[in-house]
Amino acid sequence: MIVTIIGTGLIGGSLAITLREKGVAERIIGVDQHESHLQRAKELNIIDEGMTLDDAMQCSDLIILAIPVDGVLQVLPTLMDKVRPNQVIMDVGSTKQKILQLVAGHPNRGRFVAAHPMAGTEYSGPDAAVRNLFVNKTMVLCDVKNSDEDALEMVEDMVDKLQMRTVYMNGEEHDLHTAYVSHISHITSFALALTVLKKEKESGRIFELASGGFESTVRLAKSSPDMWVPIFKHNRGNVLDVLDEHIHQLQQMKALLEAEDYDTFYKLIQKSNKIRKILK
Amino acid sequence: MIVTIIGTGLIGGSLAITLREKGVAERIIGVDQHESHLQRAKELNIIDEGMTLDDAMQCSDLIILAIPVDGVLQVLPTLMDKVRPNQVIMDVGSTKQKILQLVAGHPNRGRFVAAHPMAGTEYSGPDAAVRNLFVNKTMVLCDVKNSDEDALEMVEDMVDKLQMRTVYMNGEEHDLHTAYVSHISHITSFALALTVLKKEKESGRIFELASGGFESTVRLAKSSPDMWVPIFKHNRGNVLDVLDEHIHQLQQMKALLEAEDYDTFYKLIQKSNKIRKILK
Repeated sequence: MIVTIIGTGLIGGSLAITLREKGVAERIIGVDQHESHLQRAKELNIIDEGMTLDDAMQCSDLIILAIPVDGVLQVLPTLMDKVRPNQVIMDVGSTKQKILQLVAGHPNRGRFVAAHPMAGTEYSGPDAAVRNLFVNKTMVLCDVKNSDEDALEMVEDMVDKLQMRTVYMNGEEHDLHTAYVSHISHITSFALALTVLKKEKESGRIFELASGGFESTVRLAKSSPDMWVPIFKHNRGNVLDVLDEHIHQLQQMKALLEAEDYDTFYKLIQKSNKIRKILK
Repeated sequence: MIVTIIGTGLIGGSLAITLREKGVAERIIGVDQHESHLQRAKELNIIDEGMTLDDAMQCSDLIILAIPVDGVLQVLPTLMDKVRPNQVIMDVGSTKQKILQLVAGHPNRGRFVAAHPMAGTEYSGPDAAVRNLFVNKTMVLCDVKNSDEDALEMVEDMVDKLQMRTVYMNGEEHDLHTAYVSHISHITSFALALTVLKKEKESGRIFELASGGFESTVRLAKSSPDMWVPIFKHNRGNVLDVLDEHIHQLQQMKALLEAEDYDTFYKLIQKSNKIRKILK
């Protein structure tokens, strides 16, 4: 089939590479507001050609929206109006409630499938696109009862070919859970980077000592604000709740350290060690 | 030479494996208060034999203290009293000021070298010991002007064989810098794990969605409280300072989100992206 990828960056580009490799897409069209991204995606053989959105809509079986969520909210209404009964639109945005609200009740709602691959890196743009980004990762499909059966099947077949496992939820659950397992991790990383960069100004030697543990907790701070500000904006309520709780946990640790109550601090760390059961 | 490793866990065990492999140690003696660790270290061929500390002191050229920093503070005074002029004692503890204060002015101060390899994992015990843990990592040597020339040379030769680069600082600098690039990363990880585990109790589906970003920021929360509580205790002042600053950064982000000031939030993330220059 012919697949259009709107947004030829990390996620869109990686999808394009894998869909071609797995024989899902025989032709891949790129749409991108950055002409330089389209150019680069062609050079890297990620897409076959660049087109305007209108032209791409004329000849595609599947249209994948792989742009920041504020972009999805802007572009999706037009796509929904124009989509033909044999076409499928899918988004891969990191928040889902606002997107699902936007298309709710639309006469063509059935042609749309809301998806979120729980995969990524801290890099962006076509050069960040990689093979196998999605292998063994989770694809969340939201609100699938409102997608047409054939549209859902097309996406589910694709998810199989990407070697992903599928989890089904509604948009509300999705946005709550991702605030905990993805969005807060980015906030702490950004804050940690700012904390250390501020100190580095005074004392130039900090980074001589940075090792794996530091890199691991701070690498997400390389992530693009173009992607992340819209996520925080569109999942503001959940992100604020979890941020509140996280600040509370840090304040508790601070209070224990101030009081030199090392026994309770020990028990708190033991409790946090239970994350071992969940992380492999 | 004959090397005694006090503490046959992650760091001590990994040192033993590498020192044997590189031909630095022809015999390795293990000392551990946990009989089961000694047994396991022997089974894994990490050490040649287990001994009491007294017996090990009789026959060793180099004695390496690889136990939590509160243990170092307990054991070191006796070792300093007993050390012979041809022996070298080295510690690999994660905080340095208290240790250096303890040995300051001791008649045998010259036989002691204070070291801290900036390497590790979130695992502990002899089974966590691995080859190549130290390759291309940084070894901090502290306060070396107070070590005898031959003692320092022995340790520096060893650091070369471990394929590490050396950084020299005093204990004060060391404890300040490690608070920023190591200790705070662990605090945020512990707090993040607690935040998410608490929510998971209410809502069992969070971890279906956990992916690489989450794992990366939370993996340090698997770390042992036996190692980390003493570190926070002995670097309390610096850890409190950086924790304060980190909480302040998070509160700032929270305030921006509450005020829906996404422009300033965007600039803040851009600022934190400067960490790219430092992390490879």
